[in-house]
Amino acid sequence: MTFTRKDLLGMRDMEAGEIRHILNTAASFREINTRAIKKVPTLRGKTVIHLFYEPSTRTRISFEIAAKRLSADTYSVGTSTSSMVKGETFFDTLKNLEAMKPDLFVIRHSASGTPQRLARRTSAAVINAGDGMHEHPSQALLDLLTIQDHKGHLDGLTVGIVGDIAHSRVARSNIWGLNKLGSRVIACGPPTLIPHDLQQMGVEVSHRLEDLVPDLDVLMVLRLQKERQEQMLLPSLREYATYFGVTEAKLAGAKPELLIMHPGPINRGVEISSEVADGGRSVILDQVTNGVAVRMALLYLLLHREEETA
Amino acid sequence: MTFTRKDLLGMRDMEAGEIRHILNTAASFREINTRAIKKVPTLRGKTVIHLFYEPSTRTRISFEIAAKRLSADTYSVGTSTSSMVKGETFFDTLKNLEAMKPDLFVIRHSASGTPQRLARRTSAAVINAGDGMHEHPSQALLDLLTIQDHKGHLDGLTVGIVGDIAHSRVARSNIWGLNKLGSRVIACGPPTLIPHDLQQMGVEVSHRLEDLVPDLDVLMVLRLQKERQEQMLLPSLREYATYFGVTEAKLAGAKPELLIMHPGPINRGVEISSEVADGGRSVILDQVTNGVAVRMALLYLLLHREEETA
Amino acid sequence: MTFTRKDLLGMRDMEAGEIRHILNTAASFREINTRAIKKVPTLRGKTVIHLFYEPSTRTRISFEIAAKRLSADTYSVGTSTSSMVKGETFFDTLKNLEAMKPDLFVIRHSASGTPQRLARRTSAAVINAGDGMHEHPSQALLDLLTIQDHKGHLDGLTVGIVGDIAHSRVARSNIWGLNKLGSRVIACGPPTLIPHDLQQMGVEVSHRLEDLVPDLDVLMVLRLQKERQEQMLLPSLREYATYFGVTEAKLAGAKPELLIMHPGPINRGVEISSEVADGGRSVILDQVTNGVAVRMALLYLLLHREEETA
Repeated sequence: MTFTRKDLLGMRDMEAGEIRHILNTAASFREINTRAIKKVPTLRGKTVIHLFYEPSTRTRISFEIAAKRLSADTYSVGTSTSSMVKGETFFDTLKNLEAMKPDLFVIRHSASGTPQRLARRTSAAVINAGDGMHEHPSQALLDLLTIQDHKGHLDGLTVGIVGDIAHSRVARSNIWGLNKLGSRVIACGPPTLIPHDLQQMGVEVSHRLEDLVPDLDVLMVLRLQKERQEQMLLPSLREYATYFGVTEAKLAGAKPELLIMHPGPINRGVEISSEVADGGRSVILDQVTNGVAVRMALLYLLLHREEETA
Repeated sequence: MTFTRKDLLGMRDMEAGEIRHILNTAASFREINTRAIKKVPTLRGKTVIHLFYEPSTRTRISFEIAAKRLSADTYSVGTSTSSMVKGETFFDTLKNLEAMKPDLFVIRHSASGTPQRLARRTSAAVINAGDGMHEHPSQALLDLLTIQDHKGHLDGLTVGIVGDIAHSRVARSNIWGLNKLGSRVIACGPPTLIPHDLQQMGVEVSHRLEDLVPDLDVLMVLRLQKERQEQMLLPSLREYATYFGVTEAKLAGAKPELLIMHPGPINRGVEISSEVADGGRSVILDQVTNGVAVRMALLYLLLHREEETA
Repeated sequence: MTFTRKDLLGMRDMEAGEIRHILNTAASFREINTRAIKKVPTLRGKTVIHLFYEPSTRTRISFEIAAKRLSADTYSVGTSTSSMVKGETFFDTLKNLEAMKPDLFVIRHSASGTPQRLARRTSAAVINAGDGMHEHPSQALLDLLTIQDHKGHLDGLTVGIVGDIAHSRVARSNIWGLNKLGSRVIACGPPTLIPHDLQQMGVEVSHRLEDLVPDLDVLMVLRLQKERQEQMLLPSLREYATYFGVTEAKLAGAKPELLIMHPGPINRGVEISSEVADGGRSVILDQVTNGVAVRMALLYLLLHREEETA
């Protein structure tokens, strides 16, 4: 299989074969991260610019580590240090950076669709590292890889996603990816945080976590943004935790091999108890480890496109 | 020709031969930026410290890319993260950094003369990346290279500079450089923004853009700092734009091969219209591309001084 | 001698032989920093994460230069850009970073004991770059190396430490180190800034600088934190400077070969006069130069542990 995309913008427009190719590539890169010398010369001389217009530690560092372990050079532009202080438009900044001949942009932005607009205007490759409430494809890919590692396959699994589905780019990207690879997805959360179009995305809906749990092979717990309360979408964090916070008690009826996942950062005691987050079913840190391998695979596939297709 | 300077502080004290040598070196480095593997080992093991005490994206990233494509290691110190929080004097910070044996400092500072003072106190090389309203020599060099690319030569050209000449280090460095290489320079702007000593710098002055345009081979448009209005130097941005904003209408009488340049960041609709900035005469993004090559040349020439002169 | 520690957390629990081994290793690395090409491939492919939760220029850059001159890859996480904005706990951030398989963390934190807690929870190596008022071992090691360079030995020397001993991690680490290597230590400062347990640490106390000076081979001057005044521990900076500020007048009775040291950043005219700081006895910039070599030695010893002990 050859990978011919210029950009990695979302899971929605990907085909199952492409997703499987990325996961296989990531699995093969994973070994590098366990070596004493965790570095290969694959992307030597490549210029990768990170544009993070939202605060981030784990995703930014994960992409940076992925790039440097492949020997690429990385540069970082963020809001506070940028020319946007001087009133330049966002796309003027980008056209300027493009004129310095980077090979790839990794972009996170609060406005949905920004990576797509950037991709159309640059000949460099673009990876969407999270855009608004739209998509976060590298997170979905690392989630899929983690499930596959533990279950051996993705087709035929039942995956629950609990929390603020409506505002979650992580949920959205995972729903597209899981559907394409044959998993059944059931969303769970308060009615105010479940979008109306979920059925059209092939997702079932449940409003009671305990009813859902016995069917599940995997439970993805979403981070609850505390500002949802101010927006009157939630009565209180305590009430949310009572009904939708994942605790050992609510998992009483679960299959023994249920996997617990969370994209981080965790609000302990709100959407997940510490007992569950740190317990034997949790693969939360495996997700983080797989994140580096998935991002190495994405950088490799996008930057070796010409050579591969030649 | 050998290049024997320790520092690159300004265009004023450079000789025409030195400028031509930098431009030739930059032109030869440019090819590296078009390769699939944009990296050469020339400056491996060299330590370059970037001291940016004013916000900057394009210049800082341009210098960083230049350094890393030559395999130098770069470090970044800025106001927010620095010991200046703790009240240490600026030159104590610099003496301390110097004790760590860097090879070169790149410095941007709001106080004119700071790079010169640093250069006298350190045995490391110093590049002025913009000091107050004084000089910004790497910008002038990339501008000269861009003109030479498009016109084949610099002598005998007529170059207009429109805008806030009085407060512009870009204008000042370009005036010195253009004069030395044989271009005729005509400044244009409102009387409050034209310094009195321009004639002594060999520059003609015009107060009406339309009168000037037909003579020009190149028009450099300066960024208008919006704070000039608060300083009572400008009636309003709208009035400025009416008289000095560069539009297609004002360029009606121009030579067909007129080049439009701008150092960025652009205030669209103020000093330049989008139609002109993005039009066929604009070489604004060529300037940015040349910026990387010019900075590679400067790093190379300053850090290979010993070997070259040995 | 083999070095078998996983972490470098403090001077208190180190043995004299270990300290001497670090100093010898640092001395052997020093030569690299004087080469034209200041880089060796020793730590190629190693991942070093800098966690600086207090403002710092010199220590952060010193560690970064040390790592890159050994060819390690470095990453920087600080409070402003971190997920702590999103309310994640500190140790969740660290567990996440650990899941990306770094080899070593360098950590500075305002809470005493944080590096120790981190070290217990990670399999990566940990270097304490300063924790609260507790320890700053790499500073003590570079101070010991600087004294040894100038005096040839550490045993039998008399070392004065003047200033705010009570709140100084630099003083504490130096006291442990100097004692272990056979120096006699005398602390000097206002009674409010001298801790009660100093005698138990084997330190003599003097409250008058002039009385102390004639006995000294070395005088370490501590930085005075201006906030001690607000805490009512000091009447005024002027009064502090009058009694404890190190001036040429107060050094009138000193041995000719007395060394003056300061960990920086300096408050000129408060704890030390410019005349003394910049005078012939001052080895303040030698300390900074030795800092890079000591940190190279620490990175090398901790990351080559497996190979060395194998």
